[in-house]
Order: sequence, then C-alpha cells, then structure tokens
Amino acid sequence: MKSTYHSNSNLDLSFTRVIHVPRTLVWRAWTEPEWLKPWFCPLPWKTIACEIDLRPGGIFHTTMQSPEGVEFPNDGCYLEVVTQERLVWTNALLPGFRPGKPCAPADADDAKFLFTAMLELADADQGTRYTATVMHADETGCRQHAAMGFESGWGTALDQLIAMIQLES
Amino acid sequence: MKSTYHSNSNLDLSFTRVIHVPRTLVWRAWTEPEWLKPWFCPLPWKTIACEIDLRPGGIFHTTMQSPEGVEFPNDGCYLEVVTQERLVWTNALLPGFRPGKPCAPADADDAKFLFTAMLELADADQGTRYTATVMHADETGCRQHAAMGFESGWGTALDQLIAMIQLES
Repeated sequence: MKSTYHSNSNLDLSFTRVIHVPRTLVWRAWTEPEWLKPWFCPLPWKTIACEIDLRPGGIFHTTMQSPEGVEFPNDGCYLEVVTQERLVWTNALLPGFRPGKPCAPADADDAKFLFTAMLELADADQGTRYTATVMHADETGCRQHAAMGFESGWGTALDQLIAMIQLES
Repeated sequence: MKSTYHSNSNLDLSFTRVIHVPRTLVWRAWTEPEWLKPWFCPLPWKTIACEIDLRPGGIFHTTMQSPEGVEFPNDGCYLEVVTQERLVWTNALLPGFRPGKPCAPADADDAKFLFTAMLELADADQGTRYTATVMHADETGCRQHAAMGFESGWGTALDQLIAMIQLES
C-alpha cells in the first residue's frame, strides 16, 4: 500500500514541470549512481560520489564538491520505492532506518535542516509530469531551504538531467 | 524487498523470547488498537488511546497515562510492515514521513530520545519466536533507554500480551 502525503504549505516546498523525457529514463537518472552523478548538482558544483541501495531502509549517499574543492557528504535513507512512479527518502534517518544524531535547533548556526523528499513521476503528453516535494519539520527549516534557492536549484539540476538524457539519445 | 538491519551493540537494545502464542494473534495484538491497548503499558500505567494506519508512512499513535492521571502522547510512523513477520516504526518521523521537530541534544534535560523499533516474529516450537529491537541515534539515548528498564518494561508488557491472549482463547 502506498503512503499518503500530508501536505502543509507552511512546511513544504514543491514544484511540478512537464518534461519531454520518458519516465523510464528519469527514473534511471534518479536511481543509478552513474546516471545520477552528472546532473545532480547545479554546476559548477559536482556530485563526486553516490551510493544507492534502492529499497526502503537502503542508503542514499551523495558527496557534493564545491568549486573550491570542499566536500559535503549527505547521508539519507530511502523510505518508499515505487518503480518509475514515486521515490521518497529522508536525511532524518540513516541506512537501516536508524535515527540520525540529534541535531541543533533549526535556528542555531550549525543547524542541519531535516527533510523528507518525494519525487513523483506520471505520464504526460510527450513526456513526464515531474513533481519534487520537500517536507520540513518546522517553518524555520522550510524558509532556510527556500532562501537557499530550492526551486532554482532543483530546477537547474532538472535542466541538467534533461540535457544529459538528450545527449545520450 | 525487505530492509536490512544494521546492528550496533553500542546503540541497540534487543531481547528475544519464545512464547506459546500463535504468530497470528501476536500480530493482531500489535496492529489493532483494541487488541493493543490492554497490554501495551506495564500496569499500573495504561494505554488510553491508540491510532494505527498500518502501512509505511502511516500513523502509530498511543497515549499512555500514569497512575496519577498524567497523559503522555507518543507519535510515530510505520516504516515497514511485513504481515506476521516484521513491523518497524520510528518516533523520528511523523505520519507521512515528515521529520519530527528538531530535538535537544540527548544529554539535555528535556531530551526526547529518538528511536526506531523493530518487532520480528518467526515460527517456533509450539509458538512464536519474538524479538524486539530498538535502535538509537547515540550511546546516550541507548543508555537512557536501558536505564529506564527497556528489557523489564518490554518483557512485562509481553507477559501482559500473553495473558490477554490466553484469557481470550
């Protein structure tokens, strides 16, 4: 049985686009490390490592590298995997569903905001309806993510995904 | 595909017992509110409310009441449901997989320790092999839970579960 999304406009960021890329290839771009690394970070940032165990409780690890060469590892855990349709993961749990270390409050300088992300794919005319949603724990985390450029960041990465697939085909 | 448990003896508490109760009834006792409430808290504490949406992302809510009448609500989210075999839930996520509010560090006075719990059931001679495992984020949370009497608390509740089923049958 699929999970139910409990939307909350004060806590969630979401955007939808129809893209002219088949669902099968969008799914591969999200779920195979060699397909994910080229597009996942808006350039000039890079994704230099990726590990995927595509099942609930499985690891979703990426390491991003800044233009200056600083590395930022991200550890998450898949929660729901519905092939070519829905992918849900969180950074609040580590692989095997273990809770992550308690974090500082969201207004602290060293806060890491917790999120659960959901990618939804559906058929659309000549392509795929692509919806990305990020759920946050509180409004501070949500605002912080919006200020970091959620929609432009995810949008730029999606443009890179589309360009990669068009180059391959 | 089932999740993989990553054991860590510094962070996890676990106990196993063989009980003379059929798996089908143990499963009902864990997954139907009217079956759960009578046994879930060691007496004289009581479980006065329970809500269950038995699927990944679904709510697992209980309200416990102390002998003095103080109520303690607990909100969690199921992560994995394998009928009569495995049940995994966490208090690090709210229903719909939303991250819970950032919490204080585990050594703060008002810390709520985060956990993910896993119930595993298997056939055994004349009954069921019952394993309960609780994964913590850090050693402080694990020690705190052990000091609260994890094994005696879960063991007493299990005795109450067995007694309830024996009374019913």
